[in-house]
Amino acid sequence: FGRWVVFSPARSRRPTDLKSHNPTANPSSGPGADTPKLSCPFCAGRESECAPQIFRVPPDDALPWRIRVIQNLYPALRRDIEPPPAPEPEVVDGEAEAEEQPGERAVRGFGFHDVVIETPRHDVRLWDLGAEGVRDVLLAYAARVRQLREHPAVKYVQVFKNHGASAGASMAHSHSQMLGTPFVPPSVTSRLNCMKGVFDRSGNCSLCEIRSKDILISETPYFSAIVPFGASYPFEIWIIPRQHLSYFHEIDEAKALDLGSLLKTMLQKLSKQLNDPPFNFMIHSTPFGLSSSCLPYAHWFLQIVPQLSVIGGFELGSGCYINPVFPEDAAKILRELDCST
Amino acid sequence: FGRWVVFSPARSRRPTDLKSHNPTANPSSGPGADTPKLSCPFCAGRESECAPQIFRVPPDDALPWRIRVIQNLYPALRRDIEPPPAPEPEVVDGEAEAEEQPGERAVRGFGFHDVVIETPRHDVRLWDLGAEGVRDVLLAYAARVRQLREHPAVKYVQVFKNHGASAGASMAHSHSQMLGTPFVPPSVTSRLNCMKGVFDRSGNCSLCEIRSKDILISETPYFSAIVPFGASYPFEIWIIPRQHLSYFHEIDEAKALDLGSLLKTMLQKLSKQLNDPPFNFMIHSTPFGLSSSCLPYAHWFLQIVPQLSVIGGFELGSGCYINPVFPEDAAKILRELDCST
Repeated sequence: FGRWVVFSPARSRRPTDLKSHNPTANPSSGPGADTPKLSCPFCAGRESECAPQIFRVPPDDALPWRIRVIQNLYPALRRDIEPPPAPEPEVVDGEAEAEEQPGERAVRGFGFHDVVIETPRHDVRLWDLGAEGVRDVLLAYAARVRQLREHPAVKYVQVFKNHGASAGASMAHSHSQMLGTPFVPPSVTSRLNCMKGVFDRSGNCSLCEIRSKDILISETPYFSAIVPFGASYPFEIWIIPRQHLSYFHEIDEAKALDLGSLLKTMLQKLSKQLNDPPFNFMIHSTPFGLSSSCLPYAHWFLQIVPQLSVIGGFELGSGCYINPVFPEDAAKILRELDCST
Repeated sequence: FGRWVVFSPARSRRPTDLKSHNPTANPSSGPGADTPKLSCPFCAGRESECAPQIFRVPPDDALPWRIRVIQNLYPALRRDIEPPPAPEPEVVDGEAEAEEQPGERAVRGFGFHDVVIETPRHDVRLWDLGAEGVRDVLLAYAARVRQLREHPAVKYVQVFKNHGASAGASMAHSHSQMLGTPFVPPSVTSRLNCMKGVFDRSGNCSLCEIRSKDILISETPYFSAIVPFGASYPFEIWIIPRQHLSYFHEIDEAKALDLGSLLKTMLQKLSKQLNDPPFNFMIHSTPFGLSSSCLPYAHWFLQIVPQLSVIGGFELGSGCYINPVFPEDAAKILRELDCST
């Protein structure tokens, strides 16, 4: 009810070098498990086995690449078919979610599904890169989002990273993904509605309003890392721009370096505290073409979710999450953890 | 944003006889893996190691038990503390979801968390019981829901079953659970809102309206089993009363036997088709004390979700699901599968 579903039969044919739910094949079991694989198409030298490249860093083909943005060979959405003919006006301006008939929101089709290969090396994880390396990955995300925004049918781009088989990664080689969709996803709509609710009551942006030191893990010139008060998952982390900013893709080099450094530290802390868990991170930005009256409450952030507990029937049925760790306790542990060694 | 979170530090101390994400310890690997365990507190003869019993089937202590309903030793919600003093009126009558501040909906506390031990035998799965055995489990659910409904602070009871470690089961011995919450969970509210939307437009209940033979798996005198058009998960099954009924807990013996037989068949089909996958099922009923004007669109059903794909960053971030199997195809496969052998 009220869900968007993408039916994608082609996707079931994709190969995998990770068995789901199999910890022995899990890249999260540490660098020792990440020995280079001759069969990995994301490694340097095997570019021809991948779907077409969109761009690379550095752009000069004479130099070895550090980052490649490519098409997904087994995309959930396809760029080569007709976009939906008449996109309806999106309900993201603070109105309630449109009520839909079951099945009405099924989409068979159009969209973009890209992969960002974060390093040519099979045995390097994102947080093994220097702050500059993570910066460059973030700038590659932003550059590709700006390209996708140019397509008139693309309403939103979800940037995300799955690390570890049980977090949904089908390839061990460090990579991220993004999906450009011809609709605004339901979670984005409800997030904006909630942000608007806070703004209407308090006159403040819900994320600018967060001031508590209890849930703060770390602060840099441009970003704060916190454990949110309503954390659904134990040790969930949000990295929030300290300035009120609506769009991730407008990030500049200085802010990307600052974020790169903080993201690296947070991933190191999670890895150390939780024994290199599978995790997801998602960049929650604002739909394109939102009216300017919405921008005062639309604030982008990056959410990191370590996969520590399994989603069971209660969570699936009720939409309600059970978190065994209080946010203040998780924040204190992560704040005090020293990753400099 | 807009989520309910239950913080439950005690719950992190519960023991487990299943390692999450470890297929070798997974009860879904077939009856051969389910040899009786001397250490299992759910087995006959070890009742004293469990939390207190609520009731048993049959009630006569002189006879061996077939089903026990007990308290959860490591509850997500606790029955021994004060319920929330002044429950607000719930927004389940078709209005939009209340917009809440982040963190505002965090609940530390009160509620009921019970376990239904479906059989005294460690090596028997729910669908190994006869239709009468499954009927009795369903009647035990209903009886316990009716008891919980008597508590003035309980607004909803979520009945669910987790089978297999990766679906959230911490014990291999066949059991189900229910949580009685002092609030109406968010997914219940949005489901009712969607049902109301259909009703307001068409004048019909959204589930009574489903007539397509393409998505039908099986039909009995009182129930239909379908793959819903908007299935979020591959091979998701809904079992729906053919008559318009709002409350699961009002089920009578004849309907429970009919449902028991159909549920058994569906679980057998999933087990055979998908190689005994981990799964969840959830009973989606209607909140207590809903105004009678809502009942024309509130229709209960049972949802079965095999855990075939992992929830990754796209699904977590967007709330949008990618399903590689068209509902009509899944329904045809399950319809034609013969489990009589």
